[in-house]
Amino acid sequence: MSRQQDAHKHDLDREDPLGHKQTAFDLPKGVIYLDGNSLGVLPAHVPARMQCVVTQEWGQSLIRGWNDHNWIDLPQKVGNRIARLIGAEPGAVVACDSTTINVFKVLSAALSLRPERTVIVSDNGNFPTDLYVADGLTKLLGKGHFLRLVDPQNVTKAISEDVAVVMLTEVDYKTGRRHDMKAITEKAHAAGALMIWDLAHSAGAFPVDLAGAKADFAVGCGYKYLNGGPGAPAFLYVAPRHQEHVTAPMTGWMGHEAPFAFDLDYRPAAGIDRMRVGTPPVLSLSALDAALDVFDDVDMEELRKKSVSLSELFIREVESRNVGLELASPRDPDERGSQVSFRFKEGYALMQALISCGVIGDFRAPDIVRFGFTPLFISHGDVLRAVDTLEKILVTRMWDREEFKKRQKVT
Amino acid sequence: MSRQQDAHKHDLDREDPLGHKQTAFDLPKGVIYLDGNSLGVLPAHVPARMQCVVTQEWGQSLIRGWNDHNWIDLPQKVGNRIARLIGAEPGAVVACDSTTINVFKVLSAALSLRPERTVIVSDNGNFPTDLYVADGLTKLLGKGHFLRLVDPQNVTKAISEDVAVVMLTEVDYKTGRRHDMKAITEKAHAAGALMIWDLAHSAGAFPVDLAGAKADFAVGCGYKYLNGGPGAPAFLYVAPRHQEHVTAPMTGWMGHEAPFAFDLDYRPAAGIDRMRVGTPPVLSLSALDAALDVFDDVDMEELRKKSVSLSELFIREVESRNVGLELASPRDPDERGSQVSFRFKEGYALMQALISCGVIGDFRAPDIVRFGFTPLFISHGDVLRAVDTLEKILVTRMWDREEFKKRQKVT
Repeated sequence: MSRQQDAHKHDLDREDPLGHKQTAFDLPKGVIYLDGNSLGVLPAHVPARMQCVVTQEWGQSLIRGWNDHNWIDLPQKVGNRIARLIGAEPGAVVACDSTTINVFKVLSAALSLRPERTVIVSDNGNFPTDLYVADGLTKLLGKGHFLRLVDPQNVTKAISEDVAVVMLTEVDYKTGRRHDMKAITEKAHAAGALMIWDLAHSAGAFPVDLAGAKADFAVGCGYKYLNGGPGAPAFLYVAPRHQEHVTAPMTGWMGHEAPFAFDLDYRPAAGIDRMRVGTPPVLSLSALDAALDVFDDVDMEELRKKSVSLSELFIREVESRNVGLELASPRDPDERGSQVSFRFKEGYALMQALISCGVIGDFRAPDIVRFGFTPLFISHGDVLRAVDTLEKILVTRMWDREEFKKRQKVT
Repeated sequence: MSRQQDAHKHDLDREDPLGHKQTAFDLPKGVIYLDGNSLGVLPAHVPARMQCVVTQEWGQSLIRGWNDHNWIDLPQKVGNRIARLIGAEPGAVVACDSTTINVFKVLSAALSLRPERTVIVSDNGNFPTDLYVADGLTKLLGKGHFLRLVDPQNVTKAISEDVAVVMLTEVDYKTGRRHDMKAITEKAHAAGALMIWDLAHSAGAFPVDLAGAKADFAVGCGYKYLNGGPGAPAFLYVAPRHQEHVTAPMTGWMGHEAPFAFDLDYRPAAGIDRMRVGTPPVLSLSALDAALDVFDDVDMEELRKKSVSLSELFIREVESRNVGLELASPRDPDERGSQVSFRFKEGYALMQALISCGVIGDFRAPDIVRFGFTPLFISHGDVLRAVDTLEKILVTRMWDREEFKKRQKVT
């Protein structure tokens, strides 16, 4: 690292109001982890909390844990903690099931509010599982619904008067390109359509303002920027104005007005609870609940500022080294989430080499190398060290070398 | 305890080939836990395994855990371990989502295989959430399906030629009454209907033979007799002959032929995988996976033998003490699962008193006190001690006494 870079790093990290947060995480030694957008890092206090949940809450309280430890309220409790991070009203978010299942639930609920319309608008930058759900649901319903799939820049043009629902992921998982939530939601409403936002790459990454944007529904992921652990429960949002009108497609006992009355007939619970289905997954919800502690004293505007600073530094440094990577993310940080992607023909081999050198990002076919900037545990120094490693690998074409190939075979 | 009872206890426990299993569980001191049918007990080795999954697999491997620790295969791996306990073919069971969500998936899949028929037969002893799902799904589909709900003893009479699906819970959650899986499945098939079994109170409780009974679909629970922890992932079964023909109602990326190709179009995976939806919940699946270790050397016929012995002893002892409880379960053990229920007008107060004395069962409105016999950690001695406590409480009507009321208010 040059003296100038070193000085630069120190300046930026010294001024960083979130710098102390790195110690809240248990990062593997020698790793620069730029993949918190795919799976978040373990908060240092989570193992002790999990041990307590397993040995004390489950082991000692057993069935009494539902009352003694309020297991039954975990979906709402965790939902309310996420609500603050995404600008949702209290009582409008519930943590449950997987993101995909929650897409199914809110898409079905939204369509039932627009029975006279048949079009679902989405874009080809959406995460595929969201599109699969739309495809499967339209076939299941058999009522002539269809998906109008367009390029991301053509979404607003596609919102005509026959559109029931616009369903978008705010941040493109491949490129980090970010939609204008407020403008698109306004456009959807102006056409009489409802708006669903998938916040998989937004929640915990930057401030989201669902209520301010007047979003109708949202879903999101617990295991990315929220650090809830692999396969953590997801969440869903229903705007308070819709809660008493929506019909859940999967009517389970946890969405019943009185789950423990064991009535034979279903009556939907009031509020967001009717979107719950089965028994809450206490162990994994507890891990997510604990993981959210690290956000308690975090100002999301501060977080965003650092995210932009990290990603701008990364782009500047990568491009200044002239190593043949082509920026795939928007250059304007206002149009990006908290990740930066580059195109590189041998991207898969490059990413394997980076990972073997302790810089973990990921690869998305055919040629995208993707780097997530999670400001709670990444420093500007990390960014510079990652770029140094990247440069070294690209200059030496390490993946062509015999000893690298041998090592790859072993691991 | 009388000398005769004491001798009896010793005889039965001394001959018990499963007696050594009690040490495989971490039971709270001073508790006789007769509620493993509601939430299973913590296997003693699970905390260490969870700590390893959290700190090593998640904390150190991070995103590499999907490959390094085969997280992605956990649903099938755990499914195959459950398969042995329920007489399912290898590759026919997958562990995922909640029981309720799995009911939705298999019911929808079954109905799509009988498009010309509209009737779903179930009974009013089914667990309410299964009925809620049927109600919600028929409304969602809007194709004239309806639920024909009958008394348990009238199920076979209700299976006419217009029935698409018969959907039953094998063991009644309130009374422990057990359906004849083979006979009813045969009757359903003879009428051209498909058969779904909910094994919530069967899996891990006694030998089930799904393949032998030619069941079409099944679902079940991970947190009851399988001891997977509160809200553990559930499972579902699709008979191999149907796997390539079923349509999943929720088409998610984990049910795609090539989840990591990120194609925009959905193509169902081969086999049981198409019934998967979202990202597997690694933490809770790992707990369930570990919990299943205790079954590895268990002969399910042996388990059943002990279950009958425990429940027969319990009924005999309760009735011999003349304390006013009326048997709500079938008297013939062949017609029962692994629980015994009694009716008692002040059942709620009785169960509160029992729990406060360390005998944990549960109460189901309006008047059922329910006791589960999980042969891996309950001994005949436990049964006798539980009955002694029950007798003492009933003779003294403890719940009428001031000091009990005071204590109840505090807790």
